[in-house]
Amino acid sequence: MDICKPTLCIDERIARENIRIMAAKAARLRVQFRPHFKTHQSVEVGMWFRQAGVTAITVSSVSMARQFADAGWNDITIAFPLNIRETEEVSALAARIKLNVLFDSPEQAAALAKVLKQAAGFFIKVDTGYHRAGVLPGDRETMEAILSVAAAGPLDFRGFLTHAGQTYMAESPEAVLQVSRESRARLEGLKEVYSGRFPGLITSTGDTPSCSIDDDFSGADEIRPGNFVYYDLMQLRLGSCRFGQIAAAVICPVVSVYPSRNQALIYGGAVHLSKEYQMHPDGSKIYGLAVPFTGGRWRLPEGEDYMVSLSQEHGMMRAGSRWAASLSPGDLVAVIPVHSCLAADLLKETVTFLAQ
Amino acid sequence: MDICKPTLCIDERIARENIRIMAAKAARLRVQFRPHFKTHQSVEVGMWFRQAGVTAITVSSVSMARQFADAGWNDITIAFPLNIRETEEVSALAARIKLNVLFDSPEQAAALAKVLKQAAGFFIKVDTGYHRAGVLPGDRETMEAILSVAAAGPLDFRGFLTHAGQTYMAESPEAVLQVSRESRARLEGLKEVYSGRFPGLITSTGDTPSCSIDDDFSGADEIRPGNFVYYDLMQLRLGSCRFGQIAAAVICPVVSVYPSRNQALIYGGAVHLSKEYQMHPDGSKIYGLAVPFTGGRWRLPEGEDYMVSLSQEHGMMRAGSRWAASLSPGDLVAVIPVHSCLAADLLKETVTFLAQ
Repeated sequence: MDICKPTLCIDERIARENIRIMAAKAARLRVQFRPHFKTHQSVEVGMWFRQAGVTAITVSSVSMARQFADAGWNDITIAFPLNIRETEEVSALAARIKLNVLFDSPEQAAALAKVLKQAAGFFIKVDTGYHRAGVLPGDRETMEAILSVAAAGPLDFRGFLTHAGQTYMAESPEAVLQVSRESRARLEGLKEVYSGRFPGLITSTGDTPSCSIDDDFSGADEIRPGNFVYYDLMQLRLGSCRFGQIAAAVICPVVSVYPSRNQALIYGGAVHLSKEYQMHPDGSKIYGLAVPFTGGRWRLPEGEDYMVSLSQEHGMMRAGSRWAASLSPGDLVAVIPVHSCLAADLLKETVTFLAQ
Repeated sequence: MDICKPTLCIDERIARENIRIMAAKAARLRVQFRPHFKTHQSVEVGMWFRQAGVTAITVSSVSMARQFADAGWNDITIAFPLNIRETEEVSALAARIKLNVLFDSPEQAAALAKVLKQAAGFFIKVDTGYHRAGVLPGDRETMEAILSVAAAGPLDFRGFLTHAGQTYMAESPEAVLQVSRESRARLEGLKEVYSGRFPGLITSTGDTPSCSIDDDFSGADEIRPGNFVYYDLMQLRLGSCRFGQIAAAVICPVVSVYPSRNQALIYGGAVHLSKEYQMHPDGSKIYGLAVPFTGGRWRLPEGEDYMVSLSQEHGMMRAGSRWAASLSPGDLVAVIPVHSCLAADLLKETVTFLAQ
């Protein structure tokens, strides 16, 4: 492989296996599997899901919904509260595919009801503790207002949806399970209250940590994990995956080496990896983990070879291991990103698939 | 202006004034002005520089050099140590334009000397304290090795170049001046040593904080600031600019409001603003400053209306001021980015210029 600049490499075998495992788990636990495509944003990776039997997907923007509708997906949930400045585009999409949107305020429902020509589904987005978006589980007044306003348009109430993103702050797999369980219980409680009036309601949940670690999805009718297709350092730390399940790395050229400070400069910066970081126990920041890249594959870590700072194009690597200390200008290193969704977004145009 | 999703807006009048001021300062202090184009990466903004008399520019990657060569720029310095995996592309560029590259190791010089067909200039990149890239000022052995290896190819030694990026860590304008002065003194010392053997050598320096705050460039023959064309929150905090000199903002729709927690959800996340942050004195993180956007212009801040967290597409805004507390879904806010270079890179395809 002739890599000259930072290039996102996806290990197809690992990614397909991640998809297979999650699809099998959903089938075994009898939940609908509606994977989130915001992580890969790739029509080609989408095909791997399709080949694993997936027919319904999640995206995080109207543009992404259009991209995948154009690629032949016709059952899409936009898991982002409706942006009322995009109601025309949403309405056009609803005429083409089976579309679900999210409301967490009556203003959103009213704006869409006004312009929508063909039927669309909607979920009430519920805030089960992440406090990013959503109606609080006890705020029935807002829920009733949404339901009442939505009834003015061709909008079908599908159920309650949450993203328990607080699992990312969990400090142990047990804490992830705790959050996951509480979050599902809240949705289930709402479903019990409303399913008399709206038979067929479902509950939808499922961040990657919960879906990877938990083995009990009771209370959930649908899961929407996304990151698991690639995983990353964040998930490794949370216990969602093993190193061997990580399917994405950014391959970067070594530009210069500085043995006196045990560092190497790589071509790979904030515009390739993003500035997402995690904390090293010693209090320093980690912007990625550098591992060998030989024979067209990345390998197990040799030691504590971290990206310690990033500027726009430059990445500074702490060369702690013997392997890292032996690097020369022109060599390649694989950087496992802290957050693969952001690296994949930044490097959409340079993605390379490692053959199976 | 019909903005439906996060859009980078550039205030042309302010950006042109920033260019005019810096060009005038360079002329007054008798240094060559070779602005860094990595901030805007825009052919159109490049024209504003050309109209201000600029003929020589700086970029941070080979791809950017090619982009601007294609747009008619023919005197370009790639201010990133030579990536020896790109020597063929560099060589092709050197055949088209007056090109300068950077070396901080003899391996780089040897690799380019081997393939280069037409003349190119080179600088020795000097590490004057930032410890990102460069040869230490006292490491004459490496410098001699570079000079000796470079002599094998059509490579002309242009001088010594540094980026005193440690100014970004400075805690006061005085500290910026101190770093700037020391950095220039180191380059000047090297020039004195080598200019007997290499007449016509120059020294090149100039990060935005130094160039904005300092009024004495003695010791420097050339300055290469980039960020000043837009400025941002980081520069505002350093004292490099006033609020009214900031020329870039990301205009974002308000999606939902949560009065009970004084927050608003905007469509504008890490894939639009980057995860660059700065610390609020209260210990929280700031990912951008939200200000009103009315009549097609952003306005002065109303209060402490900060972006307090970002996920991929979601931005959470602390709505502290009366203006922010009155926002509704569908309104627009302008977010002043922490680091305009990264936001501009992310939103290259949605840039809108506010007319003068």
